[in-house]
Amino acid sequence: MKLFDGARAPNPRRVRIFLAEKGITVPLVPVDMAAFGHRGEEVASRNPLRRLPVLELDDGTVLTESVAICRYFEEIHPEPPLFGTGAVGKAKVEMWQRRMELNFLACVAAAFRHLHPAMKEWEVPQVAEWGEANKPKAISFMRLLDEELATREFVAGDSYSIADITGLVAMDFTKPARIEMPAELIHLRRWYEQVSGRLSAKA
Amino acid sequence: MKLFDGARAPNPRRVRIFLAEKGITVPLVPVDMAAFGHRGEEVASRNPLRRLPVLELDDGTVLTESVAICRYFEEIHPEPPLFGTGAVGKAKVEMWQRRMELNFLACVAAAFRHLHPAMKEWEVPQVAEWGEANKPKAISFMRLLDEELATREFVAGDSYSIADITGLVAMDFTKPARIEMPAELIHLRRWYEQVSGRLSAKA
Repeated sequence: MKLFDGARAPNPRRVRIFLAEKGITVPLVPVDMAAFGHRGEEVASRNPLRRLPVLELDDGTVLTESVAICRYFEEIHPEPPLFGTGAVGKAKVEMWQRRMELNFLACVAAAFRHLHPAMKEWEVPQVAEWGEANKPKAISFMRLLDEELATREFVAGDSYSIADITGLVAMDFTKPARIEMPAELIHLRRWYEQVSGRLSAKA
Repeated sequence: MKLFDGARAPNPRRVRIFLAEKGITVPLVPVDMAAFGHRGEEVASRNPLRRLPVLELDDGTVLTESVAICRYFEEIHPEPPLFGTGAVGKAKVEMWQRRMELNFLACVAAAFRHLHPAMKEWEVPQVAEWGEANKPKAISFMRLLDEELATREFVAGDSYSIADITGLVAMDFTKPARIEMPAELIHLRRWYEQVSGRLSAKA
């Protein structure tokens, strides 16, 4: 088994944090995304979308998409559960993982990719107006999340889950995207400090 | 249990098709989205994002996000499996469901929401340049999908899955979004006719 990894990019990092929380070690194949390594043959022959991360199993099976790769490891290594337990618990983690991804990480990523000069060759065409439109969307989601985190420890309930991983990666990504967390969101700040302090956050 | 439903909108329909494939009947509460019923108290008190569908269980638990609601029904009613079987099978369905959603449905939806005059109050601000940028992305994904469907019956393998449901809804949505499937994509067309012909497609 080997994991084609993209270092600082948010999606490869989600998988590394997930593996660290599970205590699983997988051989990494580093790909230099700054040099567009993910568009080269090594990745393109395995993922026609030319994106990272990519997991290759020993029998040659290829899995892409960060959450799908995490799902595979959840199945073969269930403890600790990071996709929830029980029908309602699993659905709540899926609900929050999706909210985090579609209403937060996607907005932060759009602000970064459509506004940052370094992303010119990555996002074609860059549409600055769309980048700007995503900043208030991201902040509005932060406010919603702050209210939720006033009532519980983690994003999807009382246990750490993949929804916290997506949230942590999105929060870290607000810095290069130049989106500032409003100072009054004390519950969001408490959660962010807590998940950032876990050993897995360094992965 | 009751499902707040939004008729023709793509996400509520995904859940209805999923339920039809499972043979499950759930009492529906119709919400008139054309009259912005999803922004009213009935929905907003249950989903702060003010979106449909919303599932309310008998104990008052609320689940939102179409795929999370489907996941709940998969757990309580596993047959036929629509999220895959086995670790690799489940990961492959998740991979294709995500590709369908993030690289296809999202592009078609962006083209529709940012370009259609009727969406002016729904998507604020409408960014026409972003809507246009999504049309070639959607077509490029159709080409990728066509190559994949040359080798197998359904999107994620030999069985119908939630990835086919997301794909069907996205394909239907290309019509109001005014994105035309290139005529040479015969495998995509074969698959589209096949999944459109299932009884569940009428749900």
